[in-house]
Amino acid sequence: MSVQSYNPTTGESVDTAIAESSRGDVAAACAAAAGAARELATRSLDWRAQWLEAIAAALEADATEIIALADAETGLGVARLGGELKRTCFQFRFFATVVRDGGFLEASIDHATDSPMGPLPDLRRQLVPLGVVGVFGASNFPLAFSVPGGDTASALAAGCPVVIKAHPAHPRTSKATFDAISRASTQVGAPEGSVNLVFGLEAGVALVEDPRVSAVGFTGSYAAGRALFDRAQSRPVPIPFYGELGSVNPLVVTPAAAAARAQAIGEGVVGSVTLGSGQFCTKPGLVFVPAGDAGDALVAAAVAALVAGAGATMLTGPIRDRFESGVEFLDQVRGVECLGRSGRSSSDAGSYAALFSCDVATLEGEHEALARECFGAVAVFVRYGSSAEVLEAISSLEAALTFSVHAVDDDPDGPALLAAGVAKAGRVLVNGFPTGVGVSWSMHHGGPHPAATSSLHTSVGATGIRRWLRPVCYQNLPAPWLPEALRDDNPLGIPQRVDGVLRVADR
Amino acid sequence: MSVQSYNPTTGESVDTAIAESSRGDVAAACAAAAGAARELATRSLDWRAQWLEAIAAALEADATEIIALADAETGLGVARLGGELKRTCFQFRFFATVVRDGGFLEASIDHATDSPMGPLPDLRRQLVPLGVVGVFGASNFPLAFSVPGGDTASALAAGCPVVIKAHPAHPRTSKATFDAISRASTQVGAPEGSVNLVFGLEAGVALVEDPRVSAVGFTGSYAAGRALFDRAQSRPVPIPFYGELGSVNPLVVTPAAAAARAQAIGEGVVGSVTLGSGQFCTKPGLVFVPAGDAGDALVAAAVAALVAGAGATMLTGPIRDRFESGVEFLDQVRGVECLGRSGRSSSDAGSYAALFSCDVATLEGEHEALARECFGAVAVFVRYGSSAEVLEAISSLEAALTFSVHAVDDDPDGPALLAAGVAKAGRVLVNGFPTGVGVSWSMHHGGPHPAATSSLHTSVGATGIRRWLRPVCYQNLPAPWLPEALRDDNPLGIPQRVDGVLRVADR
Repeated sequence: MSVQSYNPTTGESVDTAIAESSRGDVAAACAAAAGAARELATRSLDWRAQWLEAIAAALEADATEIIALADAETGLGVARLGGELKRTCFQFRFFATVVRDGGFLEASIDHATDSPMGPLPDLRRQLVPLGVVGVFGASNFPLAFSVPGGDTASALAAGCPVVIKAHPAHPRTSKATFDAISRASTQVGAPEGSVNLVFGLEAGVALVEDPRVSAVGFTGSYAAGRALFDRAQSRPVPIPFYGELGSVNPLVVTPAAAAARAQAIGEGVVGSVTLGSGQFCTKPGLVFVPAGDAGDALVAAAVAALVAGAGATMLTGPIRDRFESGVEFLDQVRGVECLGRSGRSSSDAGSYAALFSCDVATLEGEHEALARECFGAVAVFVRYGSSAEVLEAISSLEAALTFSVHAVDDDPDGPALLAAGVAKAGRVLVNGFPTGVGVSWSMHHGGPHPAATSSLHTSVGATGIRRWLRPVCYQNLPAPWLPEALRDDNPLGIPQRVDGVLRVADR
Repeated sequence: MSVQSYNPTTGESVDTAIAESSRGDVAAACAAAAGAARELATRSLDWRAQWLEAIAAALEADATEIIALADAETGLGVARLGGELKRTCFQFRFFATVVRDGGFLEASIDHATDSPMGPLPDLRRQLVPLGVVGVFGASNFPLAFSVPGGDTASALAAGCPVVIKAHPAHPRTSKATFDAISRASTQVGAPEGSVNLVFGLEAGVALVEDPRVSAVGFTGSYAAGRALFDRAQSRPVPIPFYGELGSVNPLVVTPAAAAARAQAIGEGVVGSVTLGSGQFCTKPGLVFVPAGDAGDALVAAAVAALVAGAGATMLTGPIRDRFESGVEFLDQVRGVECLGRSGRSSSDAGSYAALFSCDVATLEGEHEALARECFGAVAVFVRYGSSAEVLEAISSLEAALTFSVHAVDDDPDGPALLAAGVAKAGRVLVNGFPTGVGVSWSMHHGGPHPAATSSLHTSVGATGIRRWLRPVCYQNLPAPWLPEALRDDNPLGIPQRVDGVLRVADR
């Protein structure tokens, strides 16, 4: 059966003439990747950086075609998709910087010494590539979290070949971006089999189960992520499965902040909730607002902003249907009030945005219904009476990718809320909205379960590379056999910890 | 039922009057630990370092009692156990150094900036404690890998409370060392519930399943480790399970090395195989020796050294029985020759040491029997004809904790063997024996499955602390709310990556 490309704006489906990958196809892709792995691991950091830069350039060269295909397949619009492609290319170049910096190797040299536990031999440690990485593209970012996304960029940066499973919501975009990556890889002389693409649900399962795959990166729903996680862990040889699964992303407005900036916060919340039709894993889903006049004004400003909207195209029909079911379900929860809906987009997968409200007691009583992510442009305002009440409510929530606090300078409620957020989330924000996830050295995009399957690692930012590396200790190696990163003369000019002291080379 | 303390030398059992922990006891311990977690996370790095140092001092103060109990419960001898206690105390002090260094926090500051993907907010990242850590003591190191072992030391260093499951082979040692840790914790004012001890098989299962436990460290057999790993991964909220499970630890002697140092290598192998009655997870189990005269001389030297020995006391009767079954099984494999056995110790759990030999073809044909760890003082010499033959044999082995190469300067076979070892093991050694695992910045003690359940992390050395930490990103925080590690003026004097540039503070 060949793969269909659905246009959520027009409802048209195009036959892509791409066949779904069989288990044999997946096995062949994994074998090709495994064949590339050892050679790839030997390439210099500088070569690896050039490879990533060549991929960025190839994607830019194909920008017009890629953006048009992505718009046809997602309905996200050329402005957003142009920005997403910029981010995608920036991400490849950013990882080139990370690779050249070399700190990610965690190079450490302990010369032979005496210690209270006796003589210690010469010991040196660095990280080495883990092997073949399986990557699952996401529906909601056809570029930045899909075939040319952060999982692919960080895996290649680590020196690992990839086998990418295209998301069915954008097969032609997947193919076009893969072709650019593939062309750039050939140009710079990457080993044959370094990048591979497969299609189809069965291919995804086969990828997680293939014995040549050493780790998997996934962005998507909790249900799909957990099912694949379980398969990865129950293999004869379990492998790391890094699932970034989304969350309800609590946002708390303190009484002082509501008093100071009701209008701006209310409108800001709606901007964040409706961005990309609410199809962000970082969409704020529960917004805690104080009871009383200032909170009322904030909510009123939000509702006014929301109902003025015309709705938007969602990624696929089934995503739209699940969203609308979720909204209808919320609407029937006792104690939950619908504050308003936007207009409805007339696109084939068009829908609306909606806001609800309840009090803290209702949230406590209806946790299953209210404290779970509903993927799409919907949020619930939870009205609270006291600081103690909101802290108590937060403590019973599941962990999240993000936790936002709107506060004022010297806000008496700020520090306690922030501490509560650190306990619950991978990223805490003050006076901001969580839907922007910057690619940077300090970004962490992840969090405790169920936000992610591993709270130790991130899917965005420099340290995402750590997922695809394992340490090796070299004991008593003759100098000529040492990897360059671990030589005393530090020819790569990278950070090295030498006899316990971190040293940064002048460059 | 109360816990029995068995003396493997005399065969006597002593009733410890310690009750096995019920599921309720484990739940209470985990609740106490969870109660301590948040407070513990707020303590300063310097306080945490002092805590670790106080524990080292308390263990030293109780050294005479601890060593006597450990010797009675393990038969390992006071010399070895005195050394192990030194290592154990050094390990706590070493982690105090790691904590004060502060590099483990991975502090990173990105000031707000413009980027090709648009404006980026102020983003800062550090690692924070994961929460309650479950620790499983090992049989073979009653101190260094047990109650006061590396998992405990690194977890406390990370700011995580621990619930430790004592190994049944040394309950009184576990209790005595726990009492020292507990006393030191009270002295320095650690939060109530920071350290906890439970006993019994059922308690171990309950510990892995308790919802308050955030991660588990384990040292032991593959069968037990995999069973607990599977439980940890199939929880409603899966948690990291770091199992260090042992391996066959291949050691390869090149023809040039055999020609140069047959006697020394042969005797060195036996020293490593018989150390601690072979009860090391790093014991070399498969020793590849070239066919021909030099190899013959090496093997002859090894056999002469081994048969002169008197055997030794093993840790428990069941461990001795499993060892001897394993040896008898090897003895019946077609193509495997028994080269010799040592005398047998007359201790209650006394046994012997044994060496076997086969060729590469036999290893290939009898992989299940020969390429698996047999815990105890036994090794198989595998005689090979050519470099290609030994590389081929190595490529079909399972991954290991260690991989050793004995070679000469400019050895033509050295680099290829080393590369093969890096692909297969967590630590590669040249001209050494794997049974010493130094506590240092560069040590890595782990490896790909089945040597460990996570190849990304280590159970020994500074970076073992990374297992108990997760990143948090702080976005746009007002300066007064920033954690000290992330302040622009760097009051802790720790390494910080600032706007992508790693900086080391002058101290």
